[in-house]
Amino acid sequence: MDHTPDITVLRLGHRPGRDERITTHVGLTARALGADRVIFAGDAASRADTVEDITDRFGGPFEVETTDSPLGVVRNWDGTVVHLTMYGLPIQEIESEIREVVEANNPLLIVVGAEKVPFSVYEKADWNVAVTNQPHSEIASLAVFLDRLFEGDELDREFENAERVVVPKDTGKLVKEPEK
Amino acid sequence: MDHTPDITVLRLGHRPGRDERITTHVGLTARALGADRVIFAGDAASRADTVEDITDRFGGPFEVETTDSPLGVVRNWDGTVVHLTMYGLPIQEIESEIREVVEANNPLLIVVGAEKVPFSVYEKADWNVAVTNQPHSEIASLAVFLDRLFEGDELDREFENAERVVVPKDTGKLVKEPEK
Repeated sequence: MDHTPDITVLRLGHRPGRDERITTHVGLTARALGADRVIFAGDAASRADTVEDITDRFGGPFEVETTDSPLGVVRNWDGTVVHLTMYGLPIQEIESEIREVVEANNPLLIVVGAEKVPFSVYEKADWNVAVTNQPHSEIASLAVFLDRLFEGDELDREFENAERVVVPKDTGKLVKEPEK
Repeated sequence: MDHTPDITVLRLGHRPGRDERITTHVGLTARALGADRVIFAGDAASRADTVEDITDRFGGPFEVETTDSPLGVVRNWDGTVVHLTMYGLPIQEIESEIREVVEANNPLLIVVGAEKVPFSVYEKADWNVAVTNQPHSEIASLAVFLDRLFEGDELDREFENAERVVVPKDTGKLVKEPEK
């Protein structure tokens, strides 16, 4: 898949204090692995600043939004909805079907939840997708889902308007300012 | 790759309070996506209990260890060492080479760090591997690395001695006690 589809990641169920870094990682993973934007619940607004700061420094385009009604975003989504959950169908069995539909039916909303996700999300989702049926991490599930959806193409993506670029090295660190 | 290689994930740099849930997610991701054990630094011992509790309920085998000398684990590792870092070489360019060596040269140690990883880790690593050269999440990097190392076979793994098993469903939740 090329980077045509418009992909939004919605983070449900942020618990202030407890989930700060998890929510940040969801946002940064969405950006690094090819999504176009992330939406946080309103009480995660401070996390939005962190993700925007990374986008300013390492490039975009990538949008960060907050909403007071995350369930409204799901309910009113006009496009495809994928909900990542350990209770869903195995990703390896449905990923090619999802890829076809996403290519034909933009935009895609990927919902990642915390512990309790309302049943309405399961019902609205076109697919409830499990990256294993084991309890682990919404960050890990999102990463594997995006890597499989894009079939690895997201790894070669270049970001625009970066203030700094990491140059791959076999040992150590090399960071450059890109040429204008 | 079948599940022959012996794979340990080492979590460096746990900061109490700030990193509790991130460290838990590292451990659960290691378990769910095919690693054999996780090692936490000693001050993450409470996280070890959480991961062991999941293993008790959802099955194993999976080992959780703590160490007072995580850098000693790296230094003395007799086998292959992979360090996941945004400064490393692109995973898509080196994964098949890594897979070959890991199949021949057990055991594998996968090191995931926090913000500051000592240079000695970069030097000791057989590969410093980047899942994109963008800042995101050690959980996401670990997930993509394991999924690519196993070429997806880890998703079909069955766990032993589980008290409960999630049955994949297109909508909703179904959890069973396995037959003995």
